[in-house]
Amino acid sequence: MTNGLIRSLLTTENPFNSTDEVVAWIERRNREVVVQVDEVPFAELKGWHFDEATGNLVHDSGKFFSIVGIDVRTNTGCEQRWTQPIINQPEVGYLGIICKEFDGILYFLLQAKIEPGNVNCVQLSPTLQATRSNYTQVHGGKKPAYLEYFQNATPDQIILDQLQSEQGARFLRKRNRNIIIRVDDDIEVGEDFRWLTLGQIKALMCRDNTVNMDTRTVLSGLRLEGDGDSHWASYLFASEKTKTGVMTLDEILHHLSELKSRYELTLEKIPLKDVKDWSATPTEIVHKDRRFFRILGVNVTISNREVARWCQPIVQPLQEGLCVLFVKRIGGVLHFLLQAKVECGNFDVVEFAPTIQCLTGDFRQSPNPPTFVREFLEGGIKGKVLFDTKQSEEGGRFYHEQNRNVIMLLDDDVEMGIPENFMWLTLGQIKEFLRFNNYLNIQVRSLISAINYV
Amino acid sequence: MTNGLIRSLLTTENPFNSTDEVVAWIERRNREVVVQVDEVPFAELKGWHFDEATGNLVHDSGKFFSIVGIDVRTNTGCEQRWTQPIINQPEVGYLGIICKEFDGILYFLLQAKIEPGNVNCVQLSPTLQATRSNYTQVHGGKKPAYLEYFQNATPDQIILDQLQSEQGARFLRKRNRNIIIRVDDDIEVGEDFRWLTLGQIKALMCRDNTVNMDTRTVLSGLRLEGDGDSHWASYLFASEKTKTGVMTLDEILHHLSELKSRYELTLEKIPLKDVKDWSATPTEIVHKDRRFFRILGVNVTISNREVARWCQPIVQPLQEGLCVLFVKRIGGVLHFLLQAKVECGNFDVVEFAPTIQCLTGDFRQSPNPPTFVREFLEGGIKGKVLFDTKQSEEGGRFYHEQNRNVIMLLDDDVEMGIPENFMWLTLGQIKEFLRFNNYLNIQVRSLISAINYV
Repeated sequence: MTNGLIRSLLTTENPFNSTDEVVAWIERRNREVVVQVDEVPFAELKGWHFDEATGNLVHDSGKFFSIVGIDVRTNTGCEQRWTQPIINQPEVGYLGIICKEFDGILYFLLQAKIEPGNVNCVQLSPTLQATRSNYTQVHGGKKPAYLEYFQNATPDQIILDQLQSEQGARFLRKRNRNIIIRVDDDIEVGEDFRWLTLGQIKALMCRDNTVNMDTRTVLSGLRLEGDGDSHWASYLFASEKTKTGVMTLDEILHHLSELKSRYELTLEKIPLKDVKDWSATPTEIVHKDRRFFRILGVNVTISNREVARWCQPIVQPLQEGLCVLFVKRIGGVLHFLLQAKVECGNFDVVEFAPTIQCLTGDFRQSPNPPTFVREFLEGGIKGKVLFDTKQSEEGGRFYHEQNRNVIMLLDDDVEMGIPENFMWLTLGQIKEFLRFNNYLNIQVRSLISAINYV
Repeated sequence: MTNGLIRSLLTTENPFNSTDEVVAWIERRNREVVVQVDEVPFAELKGWHFDEATGNLVHDSGKFFSIVGIDVRTNTGCEQRWTQPIINQPEVGYLGIICKEFDGILYFLLQAKIEPGNVNCVQLSPTLQATRSNYTQVHGGKKPAYLEYFQNATPDQIILDQLQSEQGARFLRKRNRNIIIRVDDDIEVGEDFRWLTLGQIKALMCRDNTVNMDTRTVLSGLRLEGDGDSHWASYLFASEKTKTGVMTLDEILHHLSELKSRYELTLEKIPLKDVKDWSATPTEIVHKDRRFFRILGVNVTISNREVARWCQPIVQPLQEGLCVLFVKRIGGVLHFLLQAKVECGNFDVVEFAPTIQCLTGDFRQSPNPPTFVREFLEGGIKGKVLFDTKQSEEGGRFYHEQNRNVIMLLDDDVEMGIPENFMWLTLGQIKEFLRFNNYLNIQVRSLISAINYV
């Protein structure tokens, strides 16, 4: 497996379909499929209603998800107590990718999938992307394609199987099962599906809004233990093999225990009607200063989904976000600068986030922006930008949300102090934390998956 | 460090105090210290009151802990929905042990500490056992002894630093910071403190209610990588070195992801007054059938605590529990049979529990007792009992709660099927899961700490 995976990582050549053909195919799908997303007042949001007692926005079946309130208290950050609306979806969905070896190279089966919130309607999604409501068919739709491969997978087929968190500030402790399985038998490839090498997927990530968040998070957990044939790949493979970097794994765990003990985070679910400074109008749930995000109702019609037409609430951000990951050679080994960040929906007080993560406020105007933001925006940090694209959040819940994702290799001679909650980790250490749950947030996983080896 | 630790594990000889002297010392402390625990009606529970709106039993300061209600739903087990009272203490306390090497052997500084709920009033506790309320001195008492050693510890002093869960059925997602630090400087030994070898502590665990739960959980995480000088120790060290047993670590993680996805657990905090089938009388909070546990108010007077006199609610179990850990040589390597168990206060749906864990019902009378209970009680499983004592739960919250703890080495030729949520793990795998948070529950940690090498 390992050899097939590493060859897949290092090649963008593909006899099934070249990268250009994949791009053309996505563009064609975008033209062919009819997608209509209309904003509708909540009163016309079929299947949904505001619960009388709580004011929560809920589905008539009591399933899917709901919009509820939370009351958050913490002892860190500028805001130490607030209430806000949040998406409540207490179920674990599947984000699954099937892969298969052809001629010694591992290929990943991705789907050109439309989500109502996507900026580019069609993006490359995992083979299977299904909430529990989907795969238990609460909404009466078709059974998701390829579901049975995951349900019947034997332990020797599993390449990766992790429960990973979703957006902590928008989802109340939501997680998905990130799973990759290997299939040896022949498998039918549906018209919306294509076999791609890992190198191709990473090349496609360099295009704005092309590879969806779910694909990115699933692929981030792959352990890539190879030997480099280029200078850059050799550095990455060496970092992956390094389990002790600037800090040992035990020192990192100790420091996380310290931070998790010192930082308090308590969160109470409250009725949506008790959320302060936010109001539900006939058309939106919005903060009094129109900050952060708004929740609206949409009527969706898509022609190649399990269900062609439905209504749902969706979350629209009110600013564009910025996620930056700093990389630096320290002692000759590549290290990544992560911050242990408190986010209200986190399972465990803090999770590792990118060096810079600005998603919920206007960081450009802030008199007191987060660490490194000003230096980064003003070009005050010397280095080379390896990756700089706009990536979408999950289009099933987020409307036209795209964030700028940057990976920057700092010059070797850059010296900088870091706050107490920042740590330099090797790729090997990052992958070890990914094996266990709830250590790296979805934004940093997205950036890790974007690291290109060629 | 490792050599000093392994020598400490394998010796019960101690120039400071022999094991007999320690036993005599605990007995003497038990006689000397005046402890009075009187049950009082809630109306006389000074500093505490029932909140008017919620019916929750709370401290007047809003700090310490409170008794609240939870509404639990799951799709596994015989009860799939229930409400119950639970202890809410959303803060991370310290359970810390200082150790120091003398003549090449590591010694652990334990305290003869009285807790109001202890069966034997005095038990051997960690050097430091402090809730955040304690060490931030909310109650205005003395600063806990040795606190500054932990607050000022440098990374190279840390032997272990883990956030581990408390009793999942009684505490709402409570965790403590389990920490062991090594000190090289001279250190004053208070009159309630003694230096003990790990071998001595394990020998003392073979006595009923002598080593408290907090000491047991802290010590359970120690990695013990040695070479045995006895047949039995060699087997244990070999199991600790074995990272791949019947299952690989990835297979165990995969199976846990599967179970965490399939088993649902949702838990809502509710007002205590909305808990069904339980009622608060003037003297107790109790289930209508007097099952599970009751909560009462006590007036405590102890002469060697930070505060000599206080009132508090305390939880009294209404039956004695049973925890059993099966051990078996498989392929020549010792494996431990753990069950992935759903408990309502768990952070992450399931945690590993002992082979048998019966704490919340009368398992002897049950027509349908949990797996292996009947066979075990009727002697239907062939093997050798290595450990069989009564151990107390934490005496600060639990009143006279003692559970039978058993470790049983199954005969090599015992063949048995196991339910889907049971797995055989090596000691090496168990220790790997202990490094990360929330994988092993407090009952199994207690049993792991009791494994004796001599």
